[in-house]
Amino acid sequence: MTDTSALFEAARAGDRASLARLMSLVERGGDDAREIGRLAYPFGGSAYTVGITGAPGAGKSTLTSATIAHMRSIELEVAVLAIDPTSPFTGGAILGDRVRMQDHATDPGVFIRSMATRGHLGGLSLAAPEAVRLLDALGRRWILVETVGVGQVEVEIAGKADTTVVVVNPGWGDSVQANKAGLMEIADVFVINKADRKGVDDTRRDLEQMLDLSEIPSGAWRPPIVTTVATDGRGVAELWNRINEHREVISTSGELERRRRHRLREELREIVARRLEQKAREICTGERWDGLTDDVIERVIDPWSAADDMLRGVDA
Amino acid sequence: MTDTSALFEAARAGDRASLARLMSLVERGGDDAREIGRLAYPFGGSAYTVGITGAPGAGKSTLTSATIAHMRSIELEVAVLAIDPTSPFTGGAILGDRVRMQDHATDPGVFIRSMATRGHLGGLSLAAPEAVRLLDALGRRWILVETVGVGQVEVEIAGKADTTVVVVNPGWGDSVQANKAGLMEIADVFVINKADRKGVDDTRRDLEQMLDLSEIPSGAWRPPIVTTVATDGRGVAELWNRINEHREVISTSGELERRRRHRLREELREIVARRLEQKAREICTGERWDGLTDDVIERVIDPWSAADDMLRGVDA
Repeated sequence: MTDTSALFEAARAGDRASLARLMSLVERGGDDAREIGRLAYPFGGSAYTVGITGAPGAGKSTLTSATIAHMRSIELEVAVLAIDPTSPFTGGAILGDRVRMQDHATDPGVFIRSMATRGHLGGLSLAAPEAVRLLDALGRRWILVETVGVGQVEVEIAGKADTTVVVVNPGWGDSVQANKAGLMEIADVFVINKADRKGVDDTRRDLEQMLDLSEIPSGAWRPPIVTTVATDGRGVAELWNRINEHREVISTSGELERRRRHRLREELREIVARRLEQKAREICTGERWDGLTDDVIERVIDPWSAADDMLRGVDA
Repeated sequence: MTDTSALFEAARAGDRASLARLMSLVERGGDDAREIGRLAYPFGGSAYTVGITGAPGAGKSTLTSATIAHMRSIELEVAVLAIDPTSPFTGGAILGDRVRMQDHATDPGVFIRSMATRGHLGGLSLAAPEAVRLLDALGRRWILVETVGVGQVEVEIAGKADTTVVVVNPGWGDSVQANKAGLMEIADVFVINKADRKGVDDTRRDLEQMLDLSEIPSGAWRPPIVTTVATDGRGVAELWNRINEHREVISTSGELERRRRHRLREELREIVARRLEQKAREICTGERWDGLTDDVIERVIDPWSAADDMLRGVDA
């Protein structure tokens, strides 16, 4: 077992290499990740998280990069967690953006970390919030979480931020490039990025109509629609203001508190489920298991009944 | 509880409405889905599944549609399961394709069903193979499963087919539009679709290089690379031949049998995990649970320790 305590102390003292190592352990999961979770938890609770999601190609990474630049210009520090396989943050080779990212990468006020979307099923849905909590515990006050808005786990992760920004493009209304209903549901702020292209007004009208249909209760937050051209930074200051407005509104109304409680409750439930899953792996070995799987393969028994059989062993 | 037996019998007798209803129940999960799994399982084992996956916009749906057309021209029946939020099969409004789909939709030799990528976490990873087994039990011999190659769950589902087709486009090598490593790993056949565009040779070279690097053992199947223009059907007959070649090779070598056993074992493990998860939901209610979540929210205890506390109750 790794000496996670020593790593955690070093990271608390500002050592980036230790932080990077801790993040890798969290990503990998297992005992070390749990231990880091235990160490980090008491120190957390001060970070504010902003999710940025949208279809592949919507310009999320460029927008994230522009947002980082804006935050740095007003002297805010920021940590970024990129869990988007289409993002240049995750180690791909997109050209122009890549250069800009590299600028941020050498800025001590910015910490960028990518997280793979692969690994064992469900791994990401635990690892991502754990990584956020680690950054929180290490004193990061603003955490941006960039995910691609395609894929069940990825949309759910974006929806777990305090403020979720959904990025679309002009013409979005006509294409089926996004998990539309899912994205609508989690949006606190809409961005029409690449707003120098035609179709901005149609897209805005499309979004407004969908918002009208969603019957937001009077007095509740209605997601504003911001237009940006992330490549040259246009609209990014306004986006930042809208994010902060949302933050103030939900902080004052108690909604932020409610969201966080709900999120923690959900996550605790998931942790319990994962622990049980681990138990399942322990159950699913040995002679009895091999016999049952053979029976399933030979179609002597169906998988559901076989699972019930195995679980009877757990209750005993 | 729904009368799943009656629905299953009706579907076995050829009633499409009953099949559609069964698929909805499978998608929803829960007791009915499990019951359908139990009913269907003894009748299955004869279908061959082909996964079709790739980045959004790669032309998967058009290719699927063209493959259906080809299969129909050689008088094969086919069932299609589309679990791709960017697919026109899933109810969106893509224009040209949409029309072609509609043609298939009225053909009694074709059954097309879309499945939402949303729902509770992990739902899709159980529902998709269950839907495939249902189609199998109802006598469908060929099942195409179309998923988008972005997102953890979606890539895993595509990789669970007997033959997995990964669709890329010319120029793919330069972009980061796909979960490349993940897709490389599951590919049995590569398709360079939209091969009327420039860059086909570069993309082919890129793929060949990646295949060289992956050190396929001598004698083992090396994924062939097929070029197609799905919009006009070019290359689709060759794709079909390659799929069948792969099928023959793995049937003869025993690899198909091994894959299926492995898949069933994995799935059985997952079913056990889900059953335990259900148990977790039962645990995660009541006074003790509420008290613990409050403690987590107040940071008196971390989520991992709280989960351990709850689970101690299960062992007792």
